[in-house]
Amino acid sequence: MEEQAQREQASPEVQARIRTSFDRQGLMGLLGARITRIAPGRVHIVLPSRPEVAQQHGYFHAGATSAIADTAGGYAAFTLFPEDTDVLTVEYKINLLAPAVGDHIEAVGTVLKSGRTLTVCQLEVFGVQDGRRSLVANGQQTLIRVNRPER
Amino acid sequence: MEEQAQREQASPEVQARIRTSFDRQGLMGLLGARITRIAPGRVHIVLPSRPEVAQQHGYFHAGATSAIADTAGGYAAFTLFPEDTDVLTVEYKINLLAPAVGDHIEAVGTVLKSGRTLTVCQLEVFGVQDGRRSLVANGQQTLIRVNRPER
Amino acid sequence: MEEQAQREQASPEVQARIRTSFDRQGLMGLLGARITRIAPGRVHIVLPSRPEVAQQHGYFHAGATSAIADTAGGYAAFTLFPEDTDVLTVEYKINLLAPAVGDHIEAVGTVLKSGRTLTVCQLEVFGVQDGRRSLVANGQQTLIRVNRPER
Amino acid sequence: MEEQAQREQASPEVQARIRTSFDRQGLMGLLGARITRIAPGRVHIVLPSRPEVAQQHGYFHAGATSAIADTAGGYAAFTLFPEDTDVLTVEYKINLLAPAVGDHIEAVGTVLKSGRTLTVCQLEVFGVQDGRRSLVANGQQTLIRVNRPER
Repeated sequence: MEEQAQREQASPEVQARIRTSFDRQGLMGLLGARITRIAPGRVHIVLPSRPEVAQQHGYFHAGATSAIADTAGGYAAFTLFPEDTDVLTVEYKINLLAPAVGDHIEAVGTVLKSGRTLTVCQLEVFGVQDGRRSLVANGQQTLIRVNRPER
Repeated sequence: MEEQAQREQASPEVQARIRTSFDRQGLMGLLGARITRIAPGRVHIVLPSRPEVAQQHGYFHAGATSAIADTAGGYAAFTLFPEDTDVLTVEYKINLLAPAVGDHIEAVGTVLKSGRTLTVCQLEVFGVQDGRRSLVANGQQTLIRVNRPER
Repeated sequence: MEEQAQREQASPEVQARIRTSFDRQGLMGLLGARITRIAPGRVHIVLPSRPEVAQQHGYFHAGATSAIADTAGGYAAFTLFPEDTDVLTVEYKINLLAPAVGDHIEAVGTVLKSGRTLTVCQLEVFGVQDGRRSLVANGQQTLIRVNRPER
Repeated sequence: MEEQAQREQASPEVQARIRTSFDRQGLMGLLGARITRIAPGRVHIVLPSRPEVAQQHGYFHAGATSAIADTAGGYAAFTLFPEDTDVLTVEYKINLLAPAVGDHIEAVGTVLKSGRTLTVCQLEVFGVQDGRRSLVANGQQTLIRVNRPER
C-alpha cells in the first residue's frame, strides 16, 4: 500500500523541478492555477472559479480551460524526461464537451506514448461542484523534448 | 476605395454586439487583450507582452496564444450570425510553430466555412516585433450556432 | 452475466442497420475491412494486412488506419441515434503513435459524449500480431446527427 | 515567366524520388490515386470517383479524402528534405466541410513551416465537377523527418 502510494508520486527531484518551472509561468499565477498532483506520466492542475477566468456567460473560458490542460500535459511529459531537457508543446486539439462550470476545474494530463523525441498526452478537464466531477473537455497533445536552452 | 473600406468593416450593430460580448469576457480583461478589427468573417485580437502572460522561458504561454486565437475565431463566426443567436466553440486544434515572442501577439480568426449549424474557422497568431510579423501559431476551429440563452 | 453480455451487444435492429450501412461503403469493401463488434457506444473494425493497404515501407498506410478509425467512430455514434437519423463526420484528429504493423489492425471507436446534435468519440487503433495488441494510433472525432436524406 | 514555371516545379531528382516512393504505396494504387503536381513545398494528388472509394451515400469516403490529403502533405514536406531522409506523419486533423462529390477530388498539401525536425502542412481537398472546384475538406498535419531506415 505504501509502495503503491510511493509509485504514484514522482520523485522529490522531479516534483521540485516541475514546481520551480510552474512558479515561473506568469500565466498560471495570473489565472490562479496550482499544481495539485505530480505522478510519473500524470499531472493535475486546478483552477478555482472567478469572473476573471470566465467568458461572456460566466462559464470558464475555453482559453482558461485549454491553458491548464496544455500545461498539465506538458508537465506530465516532463516527469518522464531526463534532467537536462525541456519540453515544448508542438500542437494540441481539444473538444469542449459541455459548459465548464463548478467551484473549480481540474485538468489531468496523462502520457499516452513517450518516445525519444515526441510524447503524446491525453488531456482531460473536469468541472467540479461540491465534490462531483464531470468531464467538460477532452483533448490530445503532441510535445517535443528539447535540450535545455543555454543561459 | 471607400466602398472597399466599408465592406471590410462589419456593420456598426455587429461591431457593437461583439464589443459588448468581448467586454463581458473576464479572461480577456485579465490577460489584457483587445479587439482591434471586426470585419465580416474575420476578427483580430491583440495581446501585449508582459510577464503575466508568459511561460517559464518568457515567451507568450501557449495558453494565452490559444485563448486569443479561440476568441478571435469565435467572434469571426459570430459576425455572420443573426442577432438572436450565440456561438460556442466545439473544438479546436492549434500548432505552436515557433516561440511566441514580440511586443505583442495578434490573433486572426477567419471563417473558412459558414453553415447553418456549424462554422469552421482558420486561426492564425503572429508575433509582432517593431512592426515585423511572423506566424507563431496556426490552427483550425469548429463552432456551433446556438439560440441565445434565456435570461 | 447473461444480462452483462446482452448489454454489451447492440440490439439486433441496431446491428442490422449498421451492417447494412457498412456493406454499402465501397471503401470498406475495397480495403477488406469488416465490423467485428457492435456494442452501444462502441464499434470495432478489423483490417487484415496486405500490400494493397500499405505505405512505401510496408506498414499499414495512415490513410487506411484513419479510414477504419473514422468509420468505427461514426458507427459507435450511430448506435445511440434514433432510427430515422444519420451521422456525418465533422472532423477528426489522429496521432500515429507507432508504425502500424501486424497480422491485422483493429480500430475501436467509443462515444465520449453523446449530445442532441453533436457526438464526440475516442478513436483507438491497435496493431495485432499473434494475438498481442499494441496501440498504434489514437484520435478524437466530432460527429453530427442529421435527418436521413430523402430518397 | 519561364523562371516562374521553373520555380514551381521541384527538381527532377526530387520528383523522381517522390514518384518512386508513391508507386510503392499499395494503398494509393488500390484507391486509384495519382500525383499530378510536385512543387517545392506543395504536392497535388487526384482521386477519380468510383463506387469503391465511396461511403454509404455515394460521396467520397472521409477515409479516402483523408488518405490522399495525408499523402499530399507528407510528400509536400518531403520535397524540402535532404536526400537521405524520410518523412512520417505524426498527426493530422481534418474537417470535412461538405459532402465530397465530383468527377474527382484533388488534395493539395502545402508546407506552412519547415523545421529541422518537424514540418507542419496545410491540407486542402477540393471536389471537382466539370472543372469547378469547391473546398470539401481542410486540415493541418505535423510530420517528422527521420533518417532513412536501414535496408
